[in-house]
Amino acid sequence: MAQKPSIPKGTRDFGPMEMAKRNYIFNTIKDVYALYGFQQIETPAMETLQTLMGKYGEEGDKLLFKVLNSGDFMNKVSDDELHERNSLHLAAKLCEKGLRYDLTVPFARYVVMHREELQLPFKRYQIQPVWRADRPQKGRYREFYQCDADVVGSDSLLNEVELMQIVDTVFTKFGVRVQIKINNRKILTGIAEIIGEADKIVDITVAIDKLDKIGLESVNAELKEDGIPDEAIEKLQPIISLSGSNSEKLDVIGKILADSEIGVKGVEETRFILDALEKTGLDNEIELDLTLARGLNYYTGAIFEVKALDTPMGSITGGGRYDNLTGIFGMPGLSGVGISFGADRIYDVLNELDLYPKEAVNSTQLLFINFGEKETAYCLPSVTKARKAGIRTEMYPDSAKMKKQMGYANAKNIPFVALAGENEINEGKLTLKNMATGEQTMVTPDELIAIVTK
Amino acid sequence: MAQKPSIPKGTRDFGPMEMAKRNYIFNTIKDVYALYGFQQIETPAMETLQTLMGKYGEEGDKLLFKVLNSGDFMNKVSDDELHERNSLHLAAKLCEKGLRYDLTVPFARYVVMHREELQLPFKRYQIQPVWRADRPQKGRYREFYQCDADVVGSDSLLNEVELMQIVDTVFTKFGVRVQIKINNRKILTGIAEIIGEADKIVDITVAIDKLDKIGLESVNAELKEDGIPDEAIEKLQPIISLSGSNSEKLDVIGKILADSEIGVKGVEETRFILDALEKTGLDNEIELDLTLARGLNYYTGAIFEVKALDTPMGSITGGGRYDNLTGIFGMPGLSGVGISFGADRIYDVLNELDLYPKEAVNSTQLLFINFGEKETAYCLPSVTKARKAGIRTEMYPDSAKMKKQMGYANAKNIPFVALAGENEINEGKLTLKNMATGEQTMVTPDELIAIVTK
Repeated sequence: MAQKPSIPKGTRDFGPMEMAKRNYIFNTIKDVYALYGFQQIETPAMETLQTLMGKYGEEGDKLLFKVLNSGDFMNKVSDDELHERNSLHLAAKLCEKGLRYDLTVPFARYVVMHREELQLPFKRYQIQPVWRADRPQKGRYREFYQCDADVVGSDSLLNEVELMQIVDTVFTKFGVRVQIKINNRKILTGIAEIIGEADKIVDITVAIDKLDKIGLESVNAELKEDGIPDEAIEKLQPIISLSGSNSEKLDVIGKILADSEIGVKGVEETRFILDALEKTGLDNEIELDLTLARGLNYYTGAIFEVKALDTPMGSITGGGRYDNLTGIFGMPGLSGVGISFGADRIYDVLNELDLYPKEAVNSTQLLFINFGEKETAYCLPSVTKARKAGIRTEMYPDSAKMKKQMGYANAKNIPFVALAGENEINEGKLTLKNMATGEQTMVTPDELIAIVTK
Repeated sequence: MAQKPSIPKGTRDFGPMEMAKRNYIFNTIKDVYALYGFQQIETPAMETLQTLMGKYGEEGDKLLFKVLNSGDFMNKVSDDELHERNSLHLAAKLCEKGLRYDLTVPFARYVVMHREELQLPFKRYQIQPVWRADRPQKGRYREFYQCDADVVGSDSLLNEVELMQIVDTVFTKFGVRVQIKINNRKILTGIAEIIGEADKIVDITVAIDKLDKIGLESVNAELKEDGIPDEAIEKLQPIISLSGSNSEKLDVIGKILADSEIGVKGVEETRFILDALEKTGLDNEIELDLTLARGLNYYTGAIFEVKALDTPMGSITGGGRYDNLTGIFGMPGLSGVGISFGADRIYDVLNELDLYPKEAVNSTQLLFINFGEKETAYCLPSVTKARKAGIRTEMYPDSAKMKKQMGYANAKNIPFVALAGENEINEGKLTLKNMATGEQTMVTPDELIAIVTK
């Protein structure tokens, strides 16, 4: 008895319908990236462990999938090392390569290796799978696609503006109403400076975030619990109760941070971005949100996050400005800014809201029924003609029972079926059935093409 | 000093230009697959070693990239096993997963796992990378894309006909003149039966293949050396000297193989395929070639191979009919037929013959020069407008020196550059420069869009 096959946990097969939907998502994003002058690159699935290790923290090192060296992989390992049975140490001896964990480190490695041939600013996008040995759970996979765009080699805030326009355009194309949230690491640093509590910035944003739920008094109590002095909490009051338009918020923050050089810089940057976006016009709302604190170890300027308005789904896109992307590989001084669309979540949102365009998920448009050799020979030239006209066309390959063939058309959601028997052949025509209406008409091959392409 | 980064040997980065060319190839093939009703699937990069091992022969097992188990991977290995230092045995203990080696075994695994939801015949295509720990050399990589289409669950020869039409259409779209070669495993088996030398069929095809180079006498001498009896060589004479049209060749073979049931079947199948293709009409030549003997362990019916006519490059596409694809996974009886485009070689052929359409490899169409904040603010609405009109547009993000910005346009091969200074702003216009002709004109934003989209 042969084995019953399975796939590794946390991985997925994508069938035709899932692929059609995923392609719709990726192609939409690709087209918009290209519209803004971003160019695609791809990097190998495997990187050297030297490239990958130490870039994602201790936990990340453990979550890297490592690839066993080919050939006699044991010859680098001494008996003593074997006896120690230290997994982490042995992994480094047995493996030189790992599967990429994200697209950012491979991109940094790419920029450093290809710096001579790159034209800066370099606007690249990359859509490829990444692998993480995370514990699989609902919505978390061990293989999933990332969908990143970054500009490196330019400090200009116009890049931030463009990335927000890209986000706005993509979700408008999807028909998903979103809220774009923007913050700036420099503002958060400024706040920490002013209240003299640099290491408490995450506690502060977490507490402020609860304002709507628990009220001002409880927020202040929580801040106190976090060990923030009364004086500092006092100073924070206008920031906790921040409201109004983005511009009004910036005015308030600007006043509070007037003595913090970096804080002022953060306010200016944010104002520039929001002003430019107001001029160019966005379809979706963008909101300054000081509680947005993603990637604080990493981002140095603007921080973005996008949420769908009509279905609860957490963040579906995020990004920000970072400095010194390539420093880890010995090439200092390159600033960058990037975004990443969360393809798996966007997939779920479009499913939830039923937003896939029919045309994007339809495959075959026209099926010719197979009644046998003679009828097939009669139909084949029309099949070819239909394809030349750009119609996705199939001839059912076997002269199976009519019911089976019609079942095939239904299962594949094929909107038109063509058939030819004695009558049709004698008249040089074909019978065309509209599967939605059930309507049947006898037409010439040219008329058939006209109807199906209409 | 930071490490100097590298990538694993046998792997490649693909930069923007390479990606544009590769996308052109993949999109062309995808479109044609879809035109014939094939649907895309994707499978995980990692499969269980249970799925992969033993499917590619002993050599293949060694060439599989194996992925080290996560966590404490040593806990399944006894001290005795460690001491033996048997790499193959230890690999099986340390690893449960491997990277896919081709797309065929994952496809078979997919069909078995999803058989309840599949509508047969199932026409699938799949374009994904595969990994092999081969010794890297020119044109042979450890990571490369395969580009397969298969029909399973139908014995009809119309599938073979369609695959040949697909090959013909794809290369016609590429503008590459090809020769399609077809053979049939059943004819070869028939020949072996008739001359009573079943195990010599590869020797025979190899010898016949040399006819043009070394002449009939030497071919016969080689056959004799291979241990084929004189009587059998005598019987082979009409087959060695086979010439004329496909139909004439089939007549000759048909007569010789009249007593071999399987041989007659092979001739009939080939005649059906070639007749149908003659009726539908191919742009490229198709030739019956008995020396075509690829995948003899695997193929059971038609065998195909495609070569470019205008540049030497070996086989750039191949395929054939196989039985019992899914038998290895305990699901007998599914026959299939498939083709595989060799993307890397096609890439080289199109480069060699300079056949990439300009539009396919162009990225940004229009660059706005950045003269500073005021000019940028003036230009931004036009940038947005151009993008809304579908023009791939960039605004240079920094107000760098003119020379640098023009250098950027040249390096990215951007055909139009727009700029606005004092004059343009006063008149509400933009200066548009055609980078090919050097021509400059002052135009309104709408006129600019009309010129660039023309």
